Amino acid sequence: SSKEVWKKGGRVFSILLAINLVLLSCTLVSGGAFQEVKLHDYDVFFMLIIVMLINIAWMLFYIFRTSRLQGAIPCKDNHAGPIWLRGGLVLFAVLSLVMDAFKTGYYSSYYKCLSPIRIMFPVVQGVFVITQTVFLWMSAQDCIHKHLNLTRCGLMLTLTTNLAVWMAAVTDESVHKAESKNPIANVTHRMALLMMRAASQAENCACKSQLCKIFQNGYYWLYPFNIEYSLFASAMVYVMWKNVGRLIDPHDNHIHQLKFKLFRRTYFLGTIVGFLVLVTGIAVLIVYEIQVNSKEDSKRTDQVLTMYFGFNIICLSLMSAICIAGSIVYRFDKRDMDHHKNPTRTLDVALLMGAALGQYAISYYSIVATVASSPRDTINALNLSYSLLMLAQPTFQNIFIIEGLHRQPPEEEDKVDPQQKDIYGLTFVNMNAVSLRVPESLSALPPSALPGLAIQTSEARRSLKASKKMNWRRRFLKEISVFLLLGNAILWVMPAFGARPQFDNKTELAFYGYPMWAAIVDICLPFGIFYRMHAVASLLEVYIMS
Amino acid sequence: SSKEVWKKGGRVFSILLAINLVLLSCTLVSGGAFQEVKLHDYDVFFMLIIVMLINIAWMLFYIFRTSRLQGAIPCKDNHAGPIWLRGGLVLFAVLSLVMDAFKTGYYSSYYKCLSPIRIMFPVVQGVFVITQTVFLWMSAQDCIHKHLNLTRCGLMLTLTTNLAVWMAAVTDESVHKAESKNPIANVTHRMALLMMRAASQAENCACKSQLCKIFQNGYYWLYPFNIEYSLFASAMVYVMWKNVGRLIDPHDNHIHQLKFKLFRRTYFLGTIVGFLVLVTGIAVLIVYEIQVNSKEDSKRTDQVLTMYFGFNIICLSLMSAICIAGSIVYRFDKRDMDHHKNPTRTLDVALLMGAALGQYAISYYSIVATVASSPRDTINALNLSYSLLMLAQPTFQNIFIIEGLHRQPPEEEDKVDPQQKDIYGLTFVNMNAVSLRVPESLSALPPSALPGLAIQTSEARRSLKASKKMNWRRRFLKEISVFLLLGNAILWVMPAFGARPQFDNKTELAFYGYPMWAAIVDICLPFGIFYRMHAVASLLEVYIMS
Repeated sequence: SSKEVWKKGGRVFSILLAINLVLLSCTLVSGGAFQEVKLHDYDVFFMLIIVMLINIAWMLFYIFRTSRLQGAIPCKDNHAGPIWLRGGLVLFAVLSLVMDAFKTGYYSSYYKCLSPIRIMFPVVQGVFVITQTVFLWMSAQDCIHKHLNLTRCGLMLTLTTNLAVWMAAVTDESVHKAESKNPIANVTHRMALLMMRAASQAENCACKSQLCKIFQNGYYWLYPFNIEYSLFASAMVYVMWKNVGRLIDPHDNHIHQLKFKLFRRTYFLGTIVGFLVLVTGIAVLIVYEIQVNSKEDSKRTDQVLTMYFGFNIICLSLMSAICIAGSIVYRFDKRDMDHHKNPTRTLDVALLMGAALGQYAISYYSIVATVASSPRDTINALNLSYSLLMLAQPTFQNIFIIEGLHRQPPEEEDKVDPQQKDIYGLTFVNMNAVSLRVPESLSALPPSALPGLAIQTSEARRSLKASKKMNWRRRFLKEISVFLLLGNAILWVMPAFGARPQFDNKTELAFYGYPMWAAIVDICLPFGIFYRMHAVASLLEVYIMS
Repeated sequence: SSKEVWKKGGRVFSILLAINLVLLSCTLVSGGAFQEVKLHDYDVFFMLIIVMLINIAWMLFYIFRTSRLQGAIPCKDNHAGPIWLRGGLVLFAVLSLVMDAFKTGYYSSYYKCLSPIRIMFPVVQGVFVITQTVFLWMSAQDCIHKHLNLTRCGLMLTLTTNLAVWMAAVTDESVHKAESKNPIANVTHRMALLMMRAASQAENCACKSQLCKIFQNGYYWLYPFNIEYSLFASAMVYVMWKNVGRLIDPHDNHIHQLKFKLFRRTYFLGTIVGFLVLVTGIAVLIVYEIQVNSKEDSKRTDQVLTMYFGFNIICLSLMSAICIAGSIVYRFDKRDMDHHKNPTRTLDVALLMGAALGQYAISYYSIVATVASSPRDTINALNLSYSLLMLAQPTFQNIFIIEGLHRQPPEEEDKVDPQQKDIYGLTFVNMNAVSLRVPESLSALPPSALPGLAIQTSEARRSLKASKKMNWRRRFLKEISVFLLLGNAILWVMPAFGARPQFDNKTELAFYGYPMWAAIVDICLPFGIFYRMHAVASLLEVYIMS
C-alpha cells in the first residue's frame, strides 16, 4: 500500500514540476512573440539552454547508471516505441540536426552583432537531439524499477523541454508567417521581411553572402521536421513515464512480431491513387506558394485559391468516403476486440481526438464567418465546403483509426478455433450480466479453466494454418490504410510548408479583424498539423495490424 | 462483448456531439464579444434558446418515461450527487431564478427598442434552471440501463448547454469589467458605462426609472451565482453520463450515512479564525471597490492596493501553512486508502488540478512582468509575493484535499480490529511483490478467506465502540477543513464580485499591453474563480469524511 501511495505521490510531484515549467516557458514564449513586450526571444533561449543541459545530464545518468542497476528493468512494454515510431524519430532527428547546423551557420555569419546565446542555442539543441534520440532508441520500452521518483521527474522534465522547444518553434514560425500575411505591412515576400527584421535587429550586419542565404532558407524549410520531432519525442517520453514502476503480466504482453511487408505483396489501387494524390498535392502547393507570394494580383489569387480549395475538397471527400467504407467493413469484422491495458494506445487515441480539436475550431470560425458574410461568390462557397469537410473527415477518420487500433492482430485470430470462440462468446454474455468489467478478468482466466478445449485448439490450428490466405477484407483494409496514410501526408505537407489559405482568403480576416483571426489560426493550426502527422503514424499501425 | 463495443460507440458519438456544440457556441460567444465582428450577442441567445428547449423536452422525457421503465435503474451510485452538492445546486438555482427575474424586468422596461429574443432568453433560462434542478435532484445518482444512447446524448447536450451558458455569462461579465478597466476609455464607473452601452444600443430608450435601475444592479450582482450554478450542474451531469449503463458491485458501494454535524460538537479555533478572515475580507473588498472605482487618484489606489495585497498575503500564507500541517498529519494517519472506482472523486481531483491552472497562468505572467519591470517599489514587491503565494497555496491545498478524499471514512476505521489490520498489512506486502494492482483484488477478497478473524472482529468491535472518542487528529483535520473552507469562500467572493487588482495595478498592463493582458486575465480568471468554489465543495467533503 505504501508503495502504491508513493506511486501516486511521485506522479503528482512530477506533474507539478511539469506544469510549472510549461507555464513558465509559455509565459516567456508568448511574451517574447510580441515586439511591444519587453521580453526578448533570447530570454527563452537562455531558459531552454539551461533546461536542456540539465536534461542531457539526467539522460546520461539514466543510460549509464539507472538502467544498469540490478533488477532495474524487470520487464519491457512491447507496445511502446514500435520500430516505425523510433525510425521516424531518427529521421526527424537527422533533419533537425541539419536544421541546427544551418542555423548555427546562419547566425555565426554575423556573430559580431548578435548575443552569443543565439549561436549557442542551436549547438546545445543539437547535442540534446542526439542524446535524446539515443536515449529513446535504447529505453523507450523500459519499465524502470529503480530511482523511481528521479526518473519520473527526469522524464517530465524531458517532456516539458520538448513541449517548450515545440512552443518556441511554432511561435517563431507563426510570427514569420503572420507578419508576411499582415495586411497592414506592405511587404510582398516573407523572405524580404525576414531579412529586414534581421537587419533591423543587427543594425549594420546583413545576410549578404550566398552561403548565408542558403543557410537562412534551409533552416526555414526544415522547421516543420524539428516541430514534429519534438512532438514525437514528447509522446514517447510520456509513455515511458506511464510505464515507470509498472509490472506487466507476461500473459498480457504478447509480442507481435509483425513484419512490415509493404513490398512483399503487391497492392495496387490504394498505393497508386495515394501516390497520385501526393504528387498532385505537391504540385498544387508549389503553384500556390509561387502565385500567392509573388504578386498581389487579386484575380490571380482567386484562381489559385480555387485550385487549392478544389484539390482539398476532392481529396477530403474521397478520404471521408473511404473512411466510412472502412468503418462499415469493421462492423462485419468478427475479430475480437483487444481490451488489454496499453498506455501507448490510450495516448494515441487521446492525441487523435485532442489534436483534431484545433482543426475543428478553425473550421467553425471559418463556417460562421462564411455564412454571415454577404458576398456569396465561388471562393466563399468553396471555403465553406472545405471547412465542412475539414470537420467531417477527421471525425470519420478518427472512428476508423480507433476501431482499427482496438482489434486483435490477425495472427492470433487465425489460431483460435471457431468452436472455442463460441464458448468464449457465451461466457461473455453470462458474465456480462454480472459485471461490465469482464474482458479484463476473462483474459486473466488461466487456460486450464477450459480443459476440454486445449487439445481441440492445437488440432484446429494446423488445419487453419494450411488454409491461411489473406481474405478480401484484410486486403481492403490494407489498401484503405495506405491510401489514407498518403492522403494525410499531403494534408500535413501543405500547411506545414507554408500554405495559409486562411489568410489569403480575405473573408475571415475582414469578419474577425486581423488580431483575432491571427490568434485563432496561430494557436489552433499547429494542433491541426500535428493531427495529420499523428494520423500517419496511427494509420501505419492500423495497416500493419490488418 | 458487443454491449461493450456499443458502450464505447455510444460514448464516442455523444462526445462528438458535445465537441461540436461546444465549438459552435465558443465561436458565437467569442465572436459576439467583439464589437467589430458582425455577430450580435442575440445570435448566441437564439442558439441557446433552441438548445435549452430541446434539453427541457429531453429532461421531461427522461423523468416521465425513461426512468419509469422496468429495470431502468437497477442500482444507484451513492457517491454521486451528495446532499450538500444538491443543496448548493438548489441554492444557486434560486439565486439564478432571481437573476432571471431581474433581467426580464430590466429588459422589458424598454422592450420597444430591443429584439424580443433578449426578453425571451431569461424566461427560457428560468424554465431550464427549474427543470434541470428538479431533474438533477431526482436523478443525480441513477445508473440508467434503458435508452442508453439517447440518454448519453441527452446528458452531453445538457452538459454543453450549461457550458455554453457559462461561457456566455463569463464573456458578458468580462466585457463589462474590461471596458471599465480599459485605460483608453475614460469612463470612471462601470455602471455609467453599462448605461451608456445600453443607451447607445437602444438609442432613445434609457433606463431611467428607479425600478429599472434596481433590476439592472441586481442582475449584475447575481451573475456570479448563475456562473457557479452552470458549473455545478455540469459536474453533476458529467458524473451521470459516466454512470450510464454502469453496474455497481454492491460490495464496492457502501453507503456512508454521515451526518453533517457542524453544530453538534463545538469547534473553536478553525471556525472562529475562519469567520474572522471572512468578515475582514468582505470589509476589505467593500473598501477596495469603493476607493478604486470612485476616484482616479493614483496615491489612494496605491494605498488600497497595499491593503488588498496585504490581506491576501496574510490569508494565503496562513492557509498554506495550515495545508502543509494537514498533509503532515495525513502522513501519520493510519487509515486505509480508498481505491474503489469512483467517477465523482476522479472528476473532483481532475477539476481541482485543471481549474488551478488558470490561477497558475495568471501568476506566472504576473511574476515575469514584475521581475522584469524596473520600478521596484512596495506595490510590486507585494504583487510578487501575492503571485508566488497564489502559486504555492493551491498546490498545497490540492495535495491536502486529494489526500483527504482518498481516505476511508472513520466509521469503517473504528470497526477494524488492529490485529486484523496487521494481517491485512502483511498480506499487502507479500502480494505487492507479485502485482501492483493489489488494493483492488484485496478488497474483492471474500471475508471467508480469513476465517479465524471473523469472531475476533465482532468481539473487538464492541470494546472499540465503547472507547470511541474523537481523537485529536480527527479534530485537528476538521478544524483545518473548516478554516480552509471559509478561506476559500472569501477568496471566491473577492474576484467573483469584481475585485480586479490585475488591472488596477499598472505593472502588467504596461508590460504586456492592454489587449494581451486583458485576454490572459479574461480567459484564465474564470477558471481561478471556479477553482475556489470547487475547493469549498471538496473541503466540505473532506470535513465530513474526517
